[in-house]
Amino acid sequence: MNRSIALAVEPLTRDAFAPFGDVIEAASAARTYAINAGTTTRFHDLATVDTDREGGRPIVSLFRAQPRELPFTVTMLERHPLGSQAFVPVSKKPYLVVVAETPDAVPRLFLARNGQGVNYRAGTWHHPLLALGEVSDFLVIDRGGPGNNCDEATLAATYQIPGNLE
Amino acid sequence: MNRSIALAVEPLTRDAFAPFGDVIEAASAARTYAINAGTTTRFHDLATVDTDREGGRPIVSLFRAQPRELPFTVTMLERHPLGSQAFVPVSKKPYLVVVAETPDAVPRLFLARNGQGVNYRAGTWHHPLLALGEVSDFLVIDRGGPGNNCDEATLAATYQIPGNLE
Repeated sequence: MNRSIALAVEPLTRDAFAPFGDVIEAASAARTYAINAGTTTRFHDLATVDTDREGGRPIVSLFRAQPRELPFTVTMLERHPLGSQAFVPVSKKPYLVVVAETPDAVPRLFLARNGQGVNYRAGTWHHPLLALGEVSDFLVIDRGGPGNNCDEATLAATYQIPGNLE
Repeated sequence: MNRSIALAVEPLTRDAFAPFGDVIEAASAARTYAINAGTTTRFHDLATVDTDREGGRPIVSLFRAQPRELPFTVTMLERHPLGSQAFVPVSKKPYLVVVAETPDAVPRLFLARNGQGVNYRAGTWHHPLLALGEVSDFLVIDRGGPGNNCDEATLAATYQIPGNLE
């Protein structure tokens, strides 16, 4: 069971990420329109915020993530069964997103660039933040409230993120 | 009635902004703790998201704001009676925040720096986005749903934002 499998990096696009949640970026907006007397463009409603289950509420936080060293070995994933969780980088630094349909499936590895954010649907298995290069801040919109909202799974195989993402 | 009053710029701090809403920044967190096996610091629960009134829900959007030319004359304010509205710059560019207790009161002028975000409480009178220097993107968390959620007021006096913010 101690297999180690190399992951291939994919660009982060709305369609590729759809099984796991939303990509938060201007290009993914279903509606775009001018506001504020034409001085501002609104890229509208980019993420489904799902935080009300079992007495929950949406909360806004900042996460300050230490950069990870590559190559990196993925050995665990987590999920939040009671709510969505959105991450938007407040720098333009790239970061990595690892998600899986189940802990037994081979994960997908996405490279988020140019300020792209992600919103994990409730229950989506994902790796904790994988910042690259330098300490990186993310605005996070997730659920506060009662109940157990974090499951962790140790994976049966291990997965290698390569040292060269190109 | 055609008075014009110069506004003095104030630094944006949690205490100074408290009558109008929240400042979204690490330094304003009431709780800060380590997560993700110590690789991430969580600055927890920085804004009160109030979007459920009258069938509303929280939505996440991007606003792309054209920069304003200074000096700038404030002639109007708006408010969203049914929900809070948070703005977090996804660049570190400074921007201006103009708020007032009522349309008849002299507004307060705050300079937001170093990635500071603001969350206007429902009903807070504020000026539309005042980006500076270059086109600036903001992540916005506000209310979607039925009902009239925008009031505008033309001010009895006009207010001057100076050309030099120092």
